[in-house]
Amino acid sequence: MRSVGVWFSALGLLAVLCCSFLGSAEGGKVLVIPVDGSHWLSMKILVKELMHRGHEMVVLVPESSLLMNSSEGYRTLVYKVPYTKTQLDGSFTQLQESVFVNAPAFTDLFFNVELLVNFTSFQAKGCRSLLNQQPVLSQLRAEGYDVVLTDPFLPCGPILSRILGIPAVYFMHVLPCEMDLKANQCPVPLSYVPKFFSGNTDVMTFPQRVKNNIMALVEFYLCRVMYAKFDELVSEYVEESMTYKNLLSHGDIWLVRSNFVFDWPKPVMPNMVFIGGINCEKQRPLPADLEEFVEGSGKHGFIVFTLGSMVSSMPEEKAQQFLDAFRQIPQRVLWRYTGVELKNVPKNVKLMKWLPQNDLLAHPKAKLFLTHGGSHGVYEGLCNAVPMLMLPLFGDQADNALRMVSRGIAEKLTVYDLTTDKLLVALNNIINNKSYKDKMVKLSAIHRDHPIQPLDLAVFWTEFVMRHKGAAHLRVAAHNLNWFQYHSLDVIGFLLIVVLTALWLTLKCCLFCTHKLCRKVMVKRKVE
Amino acid sequence: MRSVGVWFSALGLLAVLCCSFLGSAEGGKVLVIPVDGSHWLSMKILVKELMHRGHEMVVLVPESSLLMNSSEGYRTLVYKVPYTKTQLDGSFTQLQESVFVNAPAFTDLFFNVELLVNFTSFQAKGCRSLLNQQPVLSQLRAEGYDVVLTDPFLPCGPILSRILGIPAVYFMHVLPCEMDLKANQCPVPLSYVPKFFSGNTDVMTFPQRVKNNIMALVEFYLCRVMYAKFDELVSEYVEESMTYKNLLSHGDIWLVRSNFVFDWPKPVMPNMVFIGGINCEKQRPLPADLEEFVEGSGKHGFIVFTLGSMVSSMPEEKAQQFLDAFRQIPQRVLWRYTGVELKNVPKNVKLMKWLPQNDLLAHPKAKLFLTHGGSHGVYEGLCNAVPMLMLPLFGDQADNALRMVSRGIAEKLTVYDLTTDKLLVALNNIINNKSYKDKMVKLSAIHRDHPIQPLDLAVFWTEFVMRHKGAAHLRVAAHNLNWFQYHSLDVIGFLLIVVLTALWLTLKCCLFCTHKLCRKVMVKRKVE
Repeated sequence: MRSVGVWFSALGLLAVLCCSFLGSAEGGKVLVIPVDGSHWLSMKILVKELMHRGHEMVVLVPESSLLMNSSEGYRTLVYKVPYTKTQLDGSFTQLQESVFVNAPAFTDLFFNVELLVNFTSFQAKGCRSLLNQQPVLSQLRAEGYDVVLTDPFLPCGPILSRILGIPAVYFMHVLPCEMDLKANQCPVPLSYVPKFFSGNTDVMTFPQRVKNNIMALVEFYLCRVMYAKFDELVSEYVEESMTYKNLLSHGDIWLVRSNFVFDWPKPVMPNMVFIGGINCEKQRPLPADLEEFVEGSGKHGFIVFTLGSMVSSMPEEKAQQFLDAFRQIPQRVLWRYTGVELKNVPKNVKLMKWLPQNDLLAHPKAKLFLTHGGSHGVYEGLCNAVPMLMLPLFGDQADNALRMVSRGIAEKLTVYDLTTDKLLVALNNIINNKSYKDKMVKLSAIHRDHPIQPLDLAVFWTEFVMRHKGAAHLRVAAHNLNWFQYHSLDVIGFLLIVVLTALWLTLKCCLFCTHKLCRKVMVKRKVE
Repeated sequence: MRSVGVWFSALGLLAVLCCSFLGSAEGGKVLVIPVDGSHWLSMKILVKELMHRGHEMVVLVPESSLLMNSSEGYRTLVYKVPYTKTQLDGSFTQLQESVFVNAPAFTDLFFNVELLVNFTSFQAKGCRSLLNQQPVLSQLRAEGYDVVLTDPFLPCGPILSRILGIPAVYFMHVLPCEMDLKANQCPVPLSYVPKFFSGNTDVMTFPQRVKNNIMALVEFYLCRVMYAKFDELVSEYVEESMTYKNLLSHGDIWLVRSNFVFDWPKPVMPNMVFIGGINCEKQRPLPADLEEFVEGSGKHGFIVFTLGSMVSSMPEEKAQQFLDAFRQIPQRVLWRYTGVELKNVPKNVKLMKWLPQNDLLAHPKAKLFLTHGGSHGVYEGLCNAVPMLMLPLFGDQADNALRMVSRGIAEKLTVYDLTTDKLLVALNNIINNKSYKDKMVKLSAIHRDHPIQPLDLAVFWTEFVMRHKGAAHLRVAAHNLNWFQYHSLDVIGFLLIVVLTALWLTLKCCLFCTHKLCRKVMVKRKVE
C-alpha cells in the first residue's frame, strides 16, 4: 500500500494555493480536513461561519472530489490523490443502482459494511497519498495552525492533527461501529441503547435485547474489518502500537450533529457537544417560477421529493411508479431528478435538477417531505415541522427513519419493493391524518428551542479549543485504563480472593477448634 | 411519625401570604421549594433572576428557618413546622463545635452520615407537617403552577411536584450517596469516578481502586440508613411501593451546580445541565472603610478568611492560633468572625461580622482565600482566580478541597490539629510560590469561558420545562428496566444457556455418531 502513496507523492504535484484569503489576522488559524460527499455540506456551514468571524480557514481538498469543487471564499489547499473523478463517480453510480434492487434484511449490515469499505478504501488511498507528500506536510507544519477541524469518519484529519501536534475538533453525525462512543469512553448500555441496523428503539422486548447484544458481538468483528485500513495507516504514520480508536481518543471536542429530539436519550460525555439542527437555515425567498408553482397548489399544498445529494436518479421503471402515484393525489410535487427523461409526467409534478430544499420545506404550503432520510434532510424536515415519508437507501438512513417513525412524525417504505399502491396509501395517510402534523409541530418546537443556536455553539467550542489550546479538562481518566481495569475486573477478582481466603481460613479455624474440642472431650471421657 | 404531622396540621395555622407580588401575568408560575441553609443562597440567585424576567415566583418557607428570613421581593408562603428556631440553631451549634475537635479519619464517612441524618430528620419532620396541611396543598393545587423549582437534597419538593402533577426542575450541587446520579440512571464507573470521602482523585492506583469499590459497598448500606426517612415519606404520601430514588427519577431537568473545572470529567446524562459558577457575580465597589483597609495592604496584598455561612465562630484557643500566624505575615487579613471577643488582635487583622466575600476576592490585591471549602466559596475563588488554603469542616467540603488541591491551585489543612506553624508554612507557600497563582489564572479563564452564562442557562431550562410542560425527550428508557435487565444479565444468562445447550447437543451428536460408526466397524469386522 505504501508504494502507491510514495508513487503518487513522487508525481511531485504539490499543493496549489488558490482563492481569496479572507481570514483576519486577529482570528485563529484553522486547518479544515473534511470528508467528501454529503458530510462536507454541513461542515461547510461551520467553516463559513468561522471565516465570517475573522478566522483564517484553510481547507484541505483532494484533487478528485464529489462535492468539494468550489472554494466559496476560504483558502483551499489541493492535494494529489491516486484516483480520478471518474473512478470516484463510478463507485457511487454502482451504489445508486444497487439500492433500488436489493431487499433489505439482516444482511443489510454486511451490505452496508461492504459499501462503506469500498468508499473508505478510496479515501484511505487518498489519505496515504497526502501523508507521503512531505512538502505539503512541511507547509502545514510551518503555517502554525491553532486547531484542526475534521470529520473523523476518515482518518486523515485525526492523523494529521496528531502528527502536527495541533488540538483537534471533530465534526460528525455518527461513526460506523459507534467508534465515536468507544473512542471517547462513552458508556453504551445495551439494554436501552439500540445498535445501528438492529431495528430496535430504546424500548426493547427481551428478544429485541437479545438481538441487540448479538449485534454488539457481530459489530465487534465487523469493526475490525471496517477499521483495518485505518489502523494500518495509524500504526504506520503515527505510532506502531496505536489503533484508530486510540488516536481518536485524543480529540478535544466532539461536535455531534445530533440531539435528543432526533436520537434517543442516552449517556454522553462532557466533551460531546450536540449541534443537531446546525443546518436549520432561515427561509430565503423562492425563485419566481417555484413560488408560482407552490402557491398554485392551493389548499392541498405540495410535496418535496429528493433522495439526497448522492442519489438523484433511479431506474425508469421505478420512477414511473412514483409518477403513477403522484398522478392520483391532489398535491403538487417538486422532485429533484437527474435521471433519463421521463414520459407522461403529470401536470402536478415538476422535475428539477436541483431544488432549494430548506426554503421549500419552510413554505407554509409544504405538506410532506418524501426523503431518503439522510441526516441533513431529516433535520430540515424537523426544523420546518413537515411530516415525512422516508425511503432509506443506505448508511445511517434506515436508522434515521426508524427514529422519526417511532416518534409518530413519519412513515417508512422500502424502495426496492415499492408499488404505486403502497406509496399512495402512505402519502394519503400522512397528509390527511392530523396526528403526524400535530406531533411534528410539537417536536419541531422542542427541536428549535436552544439556549444557544447550534451554529454558535459549534463556533464557541472551536474557538474555545483555540483559546485554551485544547480542552484537556474534559478528557476522562478512563483513557489511561485498559478494558479489564475500566470494568474493575481486577479489583473484583482481588476482593473475591480476599473474601474466599477469609472464608476458607474461618472454616479451617472452626474445623481445627472443633477437632481440638472433640479430642479433649474424647480424652476426658476416656479418663472418666 | 404521622401523628406528629397530623398534630401540627391540627394546629390549623394556615399559610401566610406576604410580601409583594412582582411576577408578570405573561410569565409562568413557579413554585419554589428550597432547602434551608447555604443551599438557599445559590438557589436564590436563580429565583431572583426568574422574577426579574417576569415570572410569578412563590417560595415555600418553613416558619423556623436558618437563612430564609427575608423575602426580597418574591411572594413567600410560610408553613408551620414542628420545631423552633432555637432548636434548629441548636443543632448547628453542636455541629460547629464538633468540627474543631474531631480527627478526620475513615470514620469521617460515618460522622458525616450522622450529622446529615440529624439535620435531615428536622427537615423531614417539617416536610411531613407541610404534607399534612391540607389547606396549603389545596391552595397550591388551585394556583396552577407551571413548574416546581426545588432542591432534591430534601424530599418535600419532589414529593409535592409529584402530588400536584407539576413538572420538576431540580437545583443542586451533589446529593449524599450520589443519589442524583443513581436516580437519573447516570453510569458511574468505579475505576475512574472517585467515591465521596474516599480521598481518591480520578487517577487511582490499584489499592485506591480497591478502596473505591469497598466504599461503594459501604455506601450501598449507608444510603439505606440515610434515605430511610425519605423513603418512608414517599411511600406514605406518594405511592406505597415507591422509594425516594424512584421519585427523584421523575425530575425533568437537573440543574447541577458543578462543571468540569471543579469536578473530574465523567459520564453525564442529557437532562443534567451544568451551572457551576452561577454565583460568579460581578465585582461591586467595596464600602469605603474596607476599600481603605485593602488598599493599605500595599504590594503584599490581603487574605480573605471565612468559614462559610454556617460556621462563623470557633473556640478561642483555636482563634488565637490563627491570630498568631497572621501576626507573622506581611499581608492584611479580613476575617468573618462572630465568636467571643478576641484579645491581642494584630493590626493587620480586621474582624467582621459579615464581609462582601465576592467583592473582596475580585479585588486585585486579594492574595489568598482561607476557606472551609463550601462549594459557593470555592466557585467564588475560582471565578476571581484567587489561590486557596482550605480548612474543610464537614459535608462535601473535604472533597471540594481535594479537587482544588489536585489541580495545584490550593492547599488543605485539617482544622482540628492546626498549629500556628503549619498555618504559617501553608500561607507563605501559597502566596509566594507563583505556581499556585499561575495555575489558578489558567483554570479560572477556562471556568469563566461559557457559551452561555450559567445563570442564563438555568433560566433557559426552567423556562423550557414551562414552555413544553416537561422535558420527556431527555428521559432515558433505562427507568423502565430493573437492575438485572439494565445490566443485560437476563440476556447474558439466556445466551449462555443457548451456547451451552448447543455445545452439549453437538457433543451428544458427535458421541452418538462415533458410537454408531464404531458399532458399524465392529459389525463389519465381525462379518469379515
